[in-house]
Amino acid sequence: MKSAILSIGDELLIGQTVNTNASYIGQILTENQTQITRACVSGDEKSSIFSELTYCGSMADVVIVTGGLGPTHDDITRTCILEYFSTKLVKDDQVYQDIVERFARLKRTLNALNEDQAMVPESARIMRNSMGTAPGYILTKDKTTFFFMPGVPSEMKAMMKNYVIPEVLRMRGDEGGYTSITTLLTTGIPESALFQKLGNLDELLHGAKLAFLPSQFGVKLRISLHSDTKTNAQNEILEIEQKIRSMVGRYIYGKGEESLAEVVGRMLKERGQTLAVAESCTGGGIANQLTNIAGASGYFEMGVVSYSNAAKVEILNVDEDIIMLKGAVSEAVAMDMAQGVKAISGADIGLSATGIMGPTGGSSDKPVGTVYIGFASHDGTIAKHFLMGDNRLLNKDKVVQAALEMVRRHLLGISFEN
Amino acid sequence: MKSAILSIGDELLIGQTVNTNASYIGQILTENQTQITRACVSGDEKSSIFSELTYCGSMADVVIVTGGLGPTHDDITRTCILEYFSTKLVKDDQVYQDIVERFARLKRTLNALNEDQAMVPESARIMRNSMGTAPGYILTKDKTTFFFMPGVPSEMKAMMKNYVIPEVLRMRGDEGGYTSITTLLTTGIPESALFQKLGNLDELLHGAKLAFLPSQFGVKLRISLHSDTKTNAQNEILEIEQKIRSMVGRYIYGKGEESLAEVVGRMLKERGQTLAVAESCTGGGIANQLTNIAGASGYFEMGVVSYSNAAKVEILNVDEDIIMLKGAVSEAVAMDMAQGVKAISGADIGLSATGIMGPTGGSSDKPVGTVYIGFASHDGTIAKHFLMGDNRLLNKDKVVQAALEMVRRHLLGISFEN
Repeated sequence: MKSAILSIGDELLIGQTVNTNASYIGQILTENQTQITRACVSGDEKSSIFSELTYCGSMADVVIVTGGLGPTHDDITRTCILEYFSTKLVKDDQVYQDIVERFARLKRTLNALNEDQAMVPESARIMRNSMGTAPGYILTKDKTTFFFMPGVPSEMKAMMKNYVIPEVLRMRGDEGGYTSITTLLTTGIPESALFQKLGNLDELLHGAKLAFLPSQFGVKLRISLHSDTKTNAQNEILEIEQKIRSMVGRYIYGKGEESLAEVVGRMLKERGQTLAVAESCTGGGIANQLTNIAGASGYFEMGVVSYSNAAKVEILNVDEDIIMLKGAVSEAVAMDMAQGVKAISGADIGLSATGIMGPTGGSSDKPVGTVYIGFASHDGTIAKHFLMGDNRLLNKDKVVQAALEMVRRHLLGISFEN
Repeated sequence: MKSAILSIGDELLIGQTVNTNASYIGQILTENQTQITRACVSGDEKSSIFSELTYCGSMADVVIVTGGLGPTHDDITRTCILEYFSTKLVKDDQVYQDIVERFARLKRTLNALNEDQAMVPESARIMRNSMGTAPGYILTKDKTTFFFMPGVPSEMKAMMKNYVIPEVLRMRGDEGGYTSITTLLTTGIPESALFQKLGNLDELLHGAKLAFLPSQFGVKLRISLHSDTKTNAQNEILEIEQKIRSMVGRYIYGKGEESLAEVVGRMLKERGQTLAVAESCTGGGIANQLTNIAGASGYFEMGVVSYSNAAKVEILNVDEDIIMLKGAVSEAVAMDMAQGVKAISGADIGLSATGIMGPTGGSSDKPVGTVYIGFASHDGTIAKHFLMGDNRLLNKDKVVQAALEMVRRHLLGISFEN
């Protein structure tokens, strides 16, 4: 079964909004064994929407459409549906009831625009919206099934889960064969070195596909393999994964969509250890990543964002003379910060970061991108020096990643050096 | 002149990589007054690439293509080009020289794969790559000009600036007229209420276009207007902006791509005020957003991520009895946290957040999504109650936004209530 993704909205074409909806839908379809043949974006213009609907319909059994179902004048998807599927608007009592109840719950007053959202295409099956007011629609034309959803991510995601995927799975039935995909996440090794370490790819893969996906944080290795049954596909891919791990295992920190923070969190929990962080240059980024994970309170004690020198001295007990002597961005201060936060929190591990994130603030001996990450544990305290680039946001993310990687290596007993 | 964007890569279709390239290209084309008719994604498969090239070519004067020009086995764009444009590979001495020099500079050894990148389609004009090894190509078919670039963002961005935009501007010449776009960022008001407050849109807009772009944080209002000259377009759009501000100004926190953290940072700086934050449920998210802005050290004093009760009591001096009596998620604790961080940092404003972010941890009287944001200033301390949903990451982001909005309103002297 083939699918296509159509995202509607001028904001996507002109780059005002990054199309994360299409990525999400692509991920979920792929996880559910549905091939995606194309993804496209149309502006808020009838002729474009019509031609993309037709083009998608010509090559896919299922077309997933998002956007343009809101209550305002620039939302024209519903109008296009009426004409494209030759149907008319009728009031849907269930949808009306949903909207009334939603407004009562939020203590808001219903207006005419909201009420109008209960008017739906007569030939559509309805997907109820558990996160907002605009319902979704399922319509069929020339053997292709079209799913129309609002573009608001939380609303779209709920509909994907509650309606689209169950319906797609029902439509597909058992097609025979199964494609398994595994992604191994590496950090700390460049793409070309990874490529070389893997040796002869044909021997390794035996017909499976391997893609190298480099990013600023590391290279993802995506293995995909088709076999006659799910069990066989999973076993064969596991064999390839094990071979890869035997060659480059130390660089692999996780699998799939796992973040390094998630991996580190799980490891801390398993080992019954706790962590506290003292952040200067990352400004709360490490704590933020760790606390994105549900259950973080089980191992994350506290964070101090010691942006000012006063905070370093007064809260973290960093030696004021050392700041004067070596500067706030120094190995000694990174070590003091890590020890300080470990001491005041009582955590097993104290992690710190101090640096110059840019774009300005560098000097000849400490250029923009200079970073020290401090690490204090029951084994002692060290600080590691890094030199990042001059892009502030990228630098912050890279330092967060490098700091978490130090925790991972400590917990595994792997050296901090590459 | 019409343009189309084609992004090539399986990783985009299956949602492993978010298509930020297409957004960037869309932005730059729009800034340079070039209309985008469609954007699409093709997988790494010849027949798909061919059909998307043909479809894009049929409706656009200029097609911007990225991806699949790298040196590894899964990069097939160059092969497709040879067939699609009926040309053959020839060695380009300039490109070869560029690659040799690049490797010398990086002290890396040239291998056969890298040398092969100097082989280019004979009928192509070359776009030299200042950030990597793969050159870009310009080719023409049936009056449409195709620009092919590597998918690595930094390489693509340099080529867009150095080659694509100058060439597109040269091709377009003076088409007459200018399109001006302004985006106003609102928060704290739903889309439908905003729509109603703006009254008669035809009277307001006089032919200009207005789009409502809702997200979980607020609604963006994008106004676009075409006029005979740049000056006229800008003046006319300014007039509309002023009318909109007169009706819904209190909800507008910024313009264009500005974040709320950026706006709040700028306002603090202008007023010479400083801020400190005590975060429980947001786990460093507020500090992280504020410190994403260069120059944050001018107004951001410190943050405490007091995830454990011990941290609240020992660092922030929250009354332990009150935690026992009212619970860590309570109005009283939010106020104590805000006062505490204001006191220990000496900042003008202390901001705090405590809540239950989910997905678990709620109770009947404090369900998941219960949040208190505390605010302490020289005028006194208050806490505001919120009820968010059950999505942890979304909740964190929403609380960060709501907390920053309280700072903005305080600095403007606007009531915290909607």
